Order: sequence, then C-alpha cells, then structure tokens
Amino acid sequence: MRDDIAALIAHDGLVPGDQLPTEQTLADRLGRSRSTVREALRLLEQEGLLRAVQGKGRFVSALGGLRVERPVTKYESITDMLEALGYAVTNAVLDVSESEATQAEALSLGISAGDPVIRLTRLRCGDDIPLVFSINTVPRDLLPGPIVHRDWTGSLTKALAGHGYNIVSSLARISAVDVPADLGKKYSLSTYDPWLLVTETCIADDGTPVVYATDYHRGSDIAFNVLRRS
Amino acid sequence: MRDDIAALIAHDGLVPGDQLPTEQTLADRLGRSRSTVREALRLLEQEGLLRAVQGKGRFVSALGGLRVERPVTKYESITDMLEALGYAVTNAVLDVSESEATQAEALSLGISAGDPVIRLTRLRCGDDIPLVFSINTVPRDLLPGPIVHRDWTGSLTKALAGHGYNIVSSLARISAVDVPADLGKKYSLSTYDPWLLVTETCIADDGTPVVYATDYHRGSDIAFNVLRRS
Repeated sequence: MRDDIAALIAHDGLVPGDQLPTEQTLADRLGRSRSTVREALRLLEQEGLLRAVQGKGRFVSALGGLRVERPVTKYESITDMLEALGYAVTNAVLDVSESEATQAEALSLGISAGDPVIRLTRLRCGDDIPLVFSINTVPRDLLPGPIVHRDWTGSLTKALAGHGYNIVSSLARISAVDVPADLGKKYSLSTYDPWLLVTETCIADDGTPVVYATDYHRGSDIAFNVLRRS
Repeated sequence: MRDDIAALIAHDGLVPGDQLPTEQTLADRLGRSRSTVREALRLLEQEGLLRAVQGKGRFVSALGGLRVERPVTKYESITDMLEALGYAVTNAVLDVSESEATQAEALSLGISAGDPVIRLTRLRCGDDIPLVFSINTVPRDLLPGPIVHRDWTGSLTKALAGHGYNIVSSLARISAVDVPADLGKKYSLSTYDPWLLVTETCIADDGTPVVYATDYHRGSDIAFNVLRRS
C-alpha cells in the first residue's frame, strides 16, 4: 500500500511542495479503505517523504524527490540498470573463457575450488563513457554448449533465465575501491578511479547460486539509494 | 519469523555446511506453529541462505556466512556501527561551528538556505586508524544552548534523542569518491582514498529531517551488505 501511494505520487508527477489528494480521493483511486490509506500515509510521513501540515493536508517533502533514483535493495541486471538511467548502453566483451573456480568464486557459488566455470569480463559504456567494469563467473554446466556459440554482449541474467535459472535475489557487498592495478593497466581503467564495487552472489528461485559477480561502478557517475530504518 | 530463525542460527553458532534442527524442534524452541516455521524456512531457502537436501534436511549454505556483516538497510549511528565491528572508537572533533545552511543542506533538512545550523566535522578512528570522516549538519534550534557547553565527541543521535528527536530512518545515497581536495589537505586524509560516501538525511519519528550527514567511510576497511530482490 505504501508503495502504491509512492507510485501514484510518481505517476501524478508530484514534486516537493505539491499537495497530495485527500485520503478519500486516494482511497477511491486505489480501491482500498480510507483507514488503510491513512496508515500508509503515516508510514510515508514517518519516513520523511511526506509532511503533514495541520489543517492544510499532506505535502511531498524535500526528501520526496530523492526517493527513487537507484534503490540498492532492488536486484536488476546492469544492462537494465543503465538503460533505466537513460544511457544508450554498449557492452564490450573484454574476455570470456572456460576456467577453474577460485576459492572465492567456489565459496560463493557453493562449488569446489577448481570446478569448471565460465568467466566473463565486460565493460559497459553509456554514451561511450566507461560506466561498469564487471567480471561474472558462472558454473560451467549452467550454460551448456561451446562458449564461442554464444553472444556474450547480451544480458547474462536473460541467458540464465533461458536455461531455467531465474535470478530472484542476490547477496551483495558494497565497497569503495580503486580498480586492481593489473586489471587497471590491462584494460586502461585506472584513470576512472575510484569505483563503487558491488560483489554479489545471485540466487535463482530454487535457491541455487548461479552467478558470482564483481561489478565496478564508476564512482563519478553511479550511486545507489537506500531507505534505512533503525 | 524469518529473522527469528536467522538469529537462532547465529545463536547456535551454525556455520556453512551445518544441518539445521528439524521443523518441529524449531517450532518448539520458537513457540510458533510448524507451518509458520516452514514458510520462513522456504523464504531463507529462496534467499539462498539455506539449502534443502532431499531426504536429509536443511543446511546452512555457503552464503549463510555472508549474512549479517553490515546491513545497509539498518540505520545506526557511526559510533554504534564501529563498536559493533569491534573497534575501540575515538572521536576527534575537528571543527564545530554555527553557520548558515548551504543549498544542499537546506533542501535536505526542509529549511531555507542561509538558515542557522550547527556544522560538526569529526574523524572517527578505530584502534587509532582513521575510519570515518563525517560532516553533520543540524538545524540550530534543535540543539539549543551555546555550542561550547556541549561535548561533541559523543553520539549526535543520542544528543538529539535527549531533545525528543528520535531518529527512526534515513534516506541515504551511496557513492565512491576520493575525499574533496580542500578537506583532504586540511585534515591530511587524501592518503586514505578512496572512500565509501554515504550522504544521508536522518528523519525523526515525527517525520522531521534532523541531520544532514556526509559520512566518508574508509574504503579499505568498511563495507556494507545488502540483500537485493528482483
């Protein structure tokens, strides 16, 4: 319900300072009871997205505008994320190879070190600007067939879905780094330091870990938002 | 319920590979119905924290170990966060002054540019290592009295709670940056680049924005975790 009202505010194009429709109007438009609507409005007030002014009504707060930029709690493919940000995305495949799982990859994917994997190194550019440098590792048997037969410029999430592995969640670790020296030199990336590094294990709907991703998001261009609660 | 089971796993010291107690045992220990427990277990499986093995039971997955490091969706004061990470925290007050709100501070705090604020610049060290450099801005009237009468080394969250402003949530933006050149030079911080910058508006339980914080977390030492869902 809270999300429905937030979506309605976005749909109506309300910006900070704008007044919200009345509780009754919202209840009618959303087909819910007035008390349900009121409860959701209180939640939005408590989060600071709305301000109630005694005797006047509810208004979108200054914070209301910050809300939706890039919620870090939402899993989405890099391709989808960059397109949502309005970039014309190009994917350069820097390397794709059959390899053996490192200790970190194995631990994350629930396999053994040395097990066969596909390791995919790509650079996503938006409007020809390097935005995300990513290394994705997938257990070899999840994507069968010779690796040269596959177009690796497309979404890995979609390729896995085509084999029945639908990613529904991920466990991510967010840190700030300079790109490792060897990779920075090899791929001419060091001038774009620093990067927001998201190290992520992506989980399919049956609970199987299917991708271990280390995604370097260019710090000057990409940020995430999050609502935190005590 | 999901969180109760996660807490029980942590309490029992179960690590990746360990088997969980049976549904009935969990239901008895938690005082809930077996069907409620089963539902929560399925959620944990779907998140990839547990693996079910046909005919054997449920086990903590390799991901189970990653779970709790530093959830970015939890609001907590820097002091609390660093103490939870096991650091002996020291707070150096680099500067505290009465000033006028900048445009960014005003927008975030719902006041006007030029309105009186207190701006507090601090460096939190753990075991004498610089970990978090923070600039916190508070509307002047929220913390009355001469600023020299207050000990600014303590938690700002607690000081505000003492005046009836209990922070319950924040809207945060996470990015990767080098410390701005002027501040880096003034406070000898540039050698610690890069930083995970959390720009955050903290909201009290009545919906009032009470702190605008720019917290630089040292990239080499501090990371956040998050569970993302599609």
